[in-house]
Order: sequence, then structure tokens, then C-alpha cells
Amino acid sequence: MPTPYHKRLSQAKRIYLTEEIEALLLFDLLNIRYLTGFTGSDGALLVLTDKTFLLVDGRYTTQARQEAKVAEVVEYREKMEGIAETVLSLGIKKLGFEAEALSVADYEKLKERLPSVYLRTLAEELQKLRSVKDNEEIEFLRQAATFASKEFYKLLPFIKPGLRERDIALELEYRLRLSGAEGISFPTIVASGENSSLPHAKPGDRILREGDVVVIDFGISYAGYHSDETCTLFLAEADARKSLVYGIVKEAHDRAISAVCAGVACSEIDRLARDYIRKKGWAAYFPHGTGHGIGLDVHESPRIAPPSRDILEEGMVITVEPGIYLPGEWGVRIEDMVLVQKEGCEVLTGINKELTIL
Amino acid sequence: MPTPYHKRLSQAKRIYLTEEIEALLLFDLLNIRYLTGFTGSDGALLVLTDKTFLLVDGRYTTQARQEAKVAEVVEYREKMEGIAETVLSLGIKKLGFEAEALSVADYEKLKERLPSVYLRTLAEELQKLRSVKDNEEIEFLRQAATFASKEFYKLLPFIKPGLRERDIALELEYRLRLSGAEGISFPTIVASGENSSLPHAKPGDRILREGDVVVIDFGISYAGYHSDETCTLFLAEADARKSLVYGIVKEAHDRAISAVCAGVACSEIDRLARDYIRKKGWAAYFPHGTGHGIGLDVHESPRIAPPSRDILEEGMVITVEPGIYLPGEWGVRIEDMVLVQKEGCEVLTGINKELTIL
Repeated sequence: MPTPYHKRLSQAKRIYLTEEIEALLLFDLLNIRYLTGFTGSDGALLVLTDKTFLLVDGRYTTQARQEAKVAEVVEYREKMEGIAETVLSLGIKKLGFEAEALSVADYEKLKERLPSVYLRTLAEELQKLRSVKDNEEIEFLRQAATFASKEFYKLLPFIKPGLRERDIALELEYRLRLSGAEGISFPTIVASGENSSLPHAKPGDRILREGDVVVIDFGISYAGYHSDETCTLFLAEADARKSLVYGIVKEAHDRAISAVCAGVACSEIDRLARDYIRKKGWAAYFPHGTGHGIGLDVHESPRIAPPSRDILEEGMVITVEPGIYLPGEWGVRIEDMVLVQKEGCEVLTGINKELTIL
Repeated sequence: MPTPYHKRLSQAKRIYLTEEIEALLLFDLLNIRYLTGFTGSDGALLVLTDKTFLLVDGRYTTQARQEAKVAEVVEYREKMEGIAETVLSLGIKKLGFEAEALSVADYEKLKERLPSVYLRTLAEELQKLRSVKDNEEIEFLRQAATFASKEFYKLLPFIKPGLRERDIALELEYRLRLSGAEGISFPTIVASGENSSLPHAKPGDRILREGDVVVIDFGISYAGYHSDETCTLFLAEADARKSLVYGIVKEAHDRAISAVCAGVACSEIDRLARDYIRKKGWAAYFPHGTGHGIGLDVHESPRIAPPSRDILEEGMVITVEPGIYLPGEWGVRIEDMVLVQKEGCEVLTGINKELTIL
């Protein structure tokens, strides 16, 4: 039965294999997983026109054979040595490699063993290929997002003044994992009071109080695919200024999402959110991009930011997450994950983003 | 007040700065933390004879200033561009860099911007420097090990037939974090029954039964320093063969530890454990090295394995972890962390390794 891996490998070959490049040497483990299904933590992939080799050390030989049916598994003792031997035995003379995922030290080891092989860096086209998801991938992303949102709702009654930020982060991660989440995608952010004014605060010992803003940013993985969602909650009350700012971020978020559609420029999505926040007078307090692609990596192509040249395509999954952060006071961020469609988009995350007072 | 960082920076300068190298460019974040105290997740360190610059992006400027008192903080927008500008502005002509921690892609960006700078790779001497711990580091490692062992004891009554491996791993991590552990050092291994025959099993849905062997390998961090300890437990009973194998691993472990002392070759420590296992007829079932250094990284220099050329020095902290794994049946591993002393060693981990039946 053809797997998605056959199709992806064909696409990769079509992109990269030319007169100048007879074979591809990949080191990025997410690219390797994308192309073969292999989930181990070390290895290399060698792709030729008619054959594919997955090179791994002894820890992963069995696993590689089970997972990567599209490739022939080769076991090495020393990685660069094993790669060089395989390249030589196949008579490859022109080899393209991933320059972002290979260290200078390893490159030198390889070069030394392959003095007559022409080594050429590959453009990051695989990122672009990965940014458009197939139906199976979309289903994994939908599952991850739905599962995470559902567990989050169950946590709401637990969030109370008197708890530390870290208690909440820990409880959420514990519940997510206990209910069967394969993994936590990134350290959960729970930022309260003045800490919520930092976009990347780490949950700490600050104790929640009535009147606090609480920003919670979290995600899980399902079959390797990540979710990412952010809620901003209010404890006991939200005064007029907080309600105002929340409303502005929410409107910026909604406007950006309404514009998501195949063919639209990513910079345009960012501009819609940013312009609205600017028009309301808060431009200086939105210091990050509006979103990012998500898939096997939490942050991947495309970028939803002012300098982005990416264009939305059907099947991309992106986050939309504008925010306003008032230094030393508090901040608001609202984030959803959406699937780009031919006409409009589908929101994959499930938490209602109306202003919520706990 | 002089911090350990001043001393470490002086040592690094003494090792690397020569006629051939006017300045060091470091990218490894653990090396940067070791030399400056900076704990951020991105940056670069430029070390000259009389000045040190920590280069970070805007997310980390404030944090870098707070943490890295030994360095002048420089903020960049694009990393390689920022580094190149700083190198040029200082008139550096001969620059040593960490080839293991720099990608070929970033190297090419740097080279292009520094056409007249002589770029030279640095030997991995910092790993050697880091392998010998000072008193503060030893105290952090002792705290991590003691804390983790203590929490493990509290978990013992929880471990019962009927639970899944993942329930136990999750419960242990939850308790460790709830009690204040800064972080979990690596995904906790809970491997039961036939899964215990895999040295690196992932905790899964297998349900514990009476008669099972359960291998638990876990660690936490304290001030960035890691602990690492493994226990093998028996549920309800340990038959004669299991008791026999446990006794052999325990004796191999004890013999290796009794020999740990400054001046002894790491290969000799490995040999003591390995020879004993071989003599008892199980050589084929001990497929990994006997241990590794531990500190800011879970696995660092020195290596305690047959081909190792490292010599133990006073202040090194290493693991001793022999094991016997019977494919498809079960396995036993016993691991402690020890501090190398002038005469003998101190065991830092706290769990009693006598055969334990739950």
C-alpha cells in the first residue's frame, strides 16, 4: 500500500535531484520523520533517484526497520564514517546536504573521507513542502488541538487565587499527559499579573490574586504533530482598561482569522491584526509577529509577520496570536490554530475566546 | 566579589588564546552558561584577552545583563550579522570557533561577512575543563541527587501491579516537579517485564504484573546541574535467575565504585565491571559503557567505557551503571552518581541498591 512517505520522497526528489545533485543527504530529524516515518533521535537519510537509505546507530536499527518502510536501513558505528562508506559504495559523486542541520565539525569529517565528492548545500525547500499538510497530517493536528482544548476546559475550576503559576502549569501538563497526550509540545506558559506583560514568561512562584490577568499558552503532540493555543483569563474581575485591551486584541485576532484564505499573503494577515492595534493606539505594545506555521515542529514555515514573503496555501496550518503587553503591568494574548482552505479557513483549536472572568 | 565565572573565563583564555587565536567565539549554550551564568536559549560568546561580549537577541538582553556580570551584553537583530559586526569593530583578525556547535549554513554566513578574518576550529578542551567540578557545582549536583532520591522513596508505595508504565513515570515526574524540582533532566524511563530488556525503553501502556522486573531511570536538575540514578525493582517476587543476575550486576557496580579514585583510568573502571560480568558468563548481555560524566549536561566528559582514554580527576562526577539485558525477557541496571576524590569517592545518589521486592 502506498504510504504518504512515498509521495513525499518523490516530491523531495523532484525538488532537489538535478544534473548537479545525484543524491540528498539529510540530517534534520523532523525532515527525516516527514519523509520516512522514522522517529528516532539520531540518524541520516540518503536519497537517490531509485533508492533511499536510512543510516542509524545500533540503538535504532530495529525501530528504523519497523518505522521506515520506504528506506533500506544501514547501521553505522561512527556516523560520518558510516555515511561516507555508504556514499562511496554507491559511487555518488555529487551530493546535496542540509547545511542548517550539519555542524562544521561533522562536515569536516565527511569532507575528509569524501575528497572526490562534490558537496553542495541544499536550499530549505523541504520546509516549504512540509508547510502544506496532507489529510492525514491535518487530522493529526486537529486531534492534537481538540484534545488539548478539551482538557483545558476541565482545568478552569482549578485555577484560583492562592495558587502559584507553576502549580497551574504543572497541573495542566499532568492532566494532559494522564489523559493520554503523547507529549507536551513546549513548556507551558502560565504568566500572571505583571508577568503576563512578558510574551515568553516562565511559570514561577508568583501567587495568583484577585484582579490578576492570567495568560496560558500550551500545546501537546499527537503522532508527532503539535497544537498551540493561548488563553487570557481574568481572576474575579476585569476593569475597564483590561476589558478594552482584551477587546482590541480579540478584534485584531478575529480580523486576521477572517482574512485567512488560500492565496492571501502572510504579511497581509499580520498587517490586518497590526493595523487594527495601531489604529487603536497600542502599536508599541505588540512586539512580535502574528503567527507561524505548525506541524511536526511547533514553529515552522510559513511566518505570519511583516517581512514575510510567504503566501497562504490550501492545507497550511498556522497560528494567529496577536497580543498587547504593558511593561510592568500586564498583557493579553489570544491564539488559535487555523487550517487554510480554498475559501476561508477552519479554526482547529476549541477554546472560546470571549472575555472570561473566573 | 569574584564569581566562579571569572576563574573559568581565565582558564578558557589560558587554554585557547595563543599567537594563532586572538579571540574565541562560542556557541554551545552549556559552555556559555558555564563561563558566564547566562541561561537563555540562544546567543554567542566572544572572548578576548581583556574583554568578553555576550551577544543575544532582544528577548534576552535584560536577562543576559542580570545573569552574565562577567560579560558586556550586545544585542543583535540577526545573529551572524551581529557577530560579524562585533568582530569587525574590535579589529579581530584570528578567531577560534566551536565547530561542533556551529552549522555549515551559519558558518558560511559568517565567513562571507568576515572575508579577511582567519577562522579556526577550537579543540573540545572546554569539555575537559567542565568535567572537573568546583565546590559550588559539586553542591548543586549533590542537591539534585539527594532531592531526586528522596522523592523516589516516597513513590515506592505507589508502584503496584495494574498500573501502566506511563502512570508511574508521570507520577514520579509530577511529584518531583511539585516538590520543587527545577526540571526533569530526561524523559523518565519506566520499563517493566520484557521492556526492561531494552536499555532505552520509553514508558508505554504495558501494565505491571506480579513477578515483573521494573527498571526506573530518572533525574532532575538543580541550578542547571543534573542527577541520574537507576533502580531495578521486583514486583512481588524475584525468582532464582533474577536474583542471580541482580546480584551479578550489583557486584559489578560495587566493584567499579570501589575502584573510583583520582588518577585511575576510566577504561579501568569499565573493565572492572565488565570483567566481572564476563567472568560470570553474561558478557554478551552488557551492551553499553559503564558510565559517563554528568554536570550541566546529563552526558558529558569523561566516558567510562572500554575505548576511553580519560583519567579520573578529583572533582569529576560520574555515573556507574552496569546492566544485563536478556532480549525478550527482562533486564537489570543499577546506577549511582559518584564524586571522584583524592582517595576513593563519595556516592551522591541516595537510593539503597540492595535487591528490593515491592
